[in-house]
Amino acid sequence: MEVKVMKSIVGVNQEIADANRKQFEKKGIVAVNIMASPGAGKTSLILALAEKLKNKADIYVIEGDIASTIDAQKMEENGIPVIQINTGGGCHLDANMVQVAAKDLDIRDNSLLFIENVGNLVCPAAFDLGESIRLVLASTPEGHDKPYKYLGMFESADMVVINKMDVKEYVGFDNEIFYKGLRSLNEKAPVFEISCRTGKGIDELADWLKDKVDAG
Amino acid sequence: MEVKVMKSIVGVNQEIADANRKQFEKKGIVAVNIMASPGAGKTSLILALAEKLKNKADIYVIEGDIASTIDAQKMEENGIPVIQINTGGGCHLDANMVQVAAKDLDIRDNSLLFIENVGNLVCPAAFDLGESIRLVLASTPEGHDKPYKYLGMFESADMVVINKMDVKEYVGFDNEIFYKGLRSLNEKAPVFEISCRTGKGIDELADWLKDKVDAG
Repeated sequence: MEVKVMKSIVGVNQEIADANRKQFEKKGIVAVNIMASPGAGKTSLILALAEKLKNKADIYVIEGDIASTIDAQKMEENGIPVIQINTGGGCHLDANMVQVAAKDLDIRDNSLLFIENVGNLVCPAAFDLGESIRLVLASTPEGHDKPYKYLGMFESADMVVINKMDVKEYVGFDNEIFYKGLRSLNEKAPVFEISCRTGKGIDELADWLKDKVDAG
Repeated sequence: MEVKVMKSIVGVNQEIADANRKQFEKKGIVAVNIMASPGAGKTSLILALAEKLKNKADIYVIEGDIASTIDAQKMEENGIPVIQINTGGGCHLDANMVQVAAKDLDIRDNSLLFIENVGNLVCPAAFDLGESIRLVLASTPEGHDKPYKYLGMFESADMVVINKMDVKEYVGFDNEIFYKGLRSLNEKAPVFEISCRTGKGIDELADWLKDKVDAG
């Protein structure tokens, strides 16, 4: 497994993001920027979707973390091509990191690229990576008030996934309050309620992403 | 309730933090900088401790959020003097914000000041606020791998609190892996295992903080 230690390049980010987007579109690659709090279940989500889409779509993963290769190791154990980016303290991925990693991954045309951003509901929202889809992953134990506090993140989401629905009742997560906050910022983003633990909702989400790849 | 919208002042942070620390020490104020992921339970922890310490210690709260006054409202409903700081996008509190808020709170000598930082396991670790104690709050649904990924945060902690121990078994949180990661970075920080939901461990933690105030 390859590990890259890279520093952010500020300023040129948008330019590189635009180039990434152009390249992804040209090759029919659907790049999903997955953003969430630490521990919301980003890695579990990718593993669950990769399992469902096995033999249906080519899947690649870019793992972003401040440090460690824990998540990338899980991908490798499941036979998924992956590159780990360590930001060395940086609180988000940037477009340059993604460009370098995507080149090294040598991604086939018409495939699905999951980009797991650094666990953080603040900084990643401000950095375009050139992704096709910005997926914000919430989880019920974090509470239903997150859209009221992390405006930039939920405002910029193309889709929202709520994980850990299996513990919803126990942790007192109120769907109505969550949706009300989300819809005040973001009228259109589709919402998927899932549980990576029980498998709830994974089929629908996998089908939805597969449709995007087929349409690309 | 007062709401302050403030921008970070970079560079002069350490100087102001040192001044804050000197002022807190002079007045015997124990200032606890509470840092955690979004939804780990920072606000619930403060409310639980305030309830236990009622009539035993004077308690004040500075609430840090990017936006909203949700947490400060909960403090006011419980009769706790509070100031809400909205960072307007900034991913951490800084020493200047705390200095201004602490002045406005007009804190009595020999009291306990809880500073709830922005929900984020990255940025707040790098900013000294002049606090007496850096409290890092983890929670079992986030997973036992967090000390391996958020090095700066766990390395700099004076104490670590693990919340949501009541769902530990269900979410598959492994104490041994967590402690091993933590101790590789931080040999000394005491660890408290609690549940704000069931009340487990709150007494011990409240007593420990009360001792700090009495010793101050």
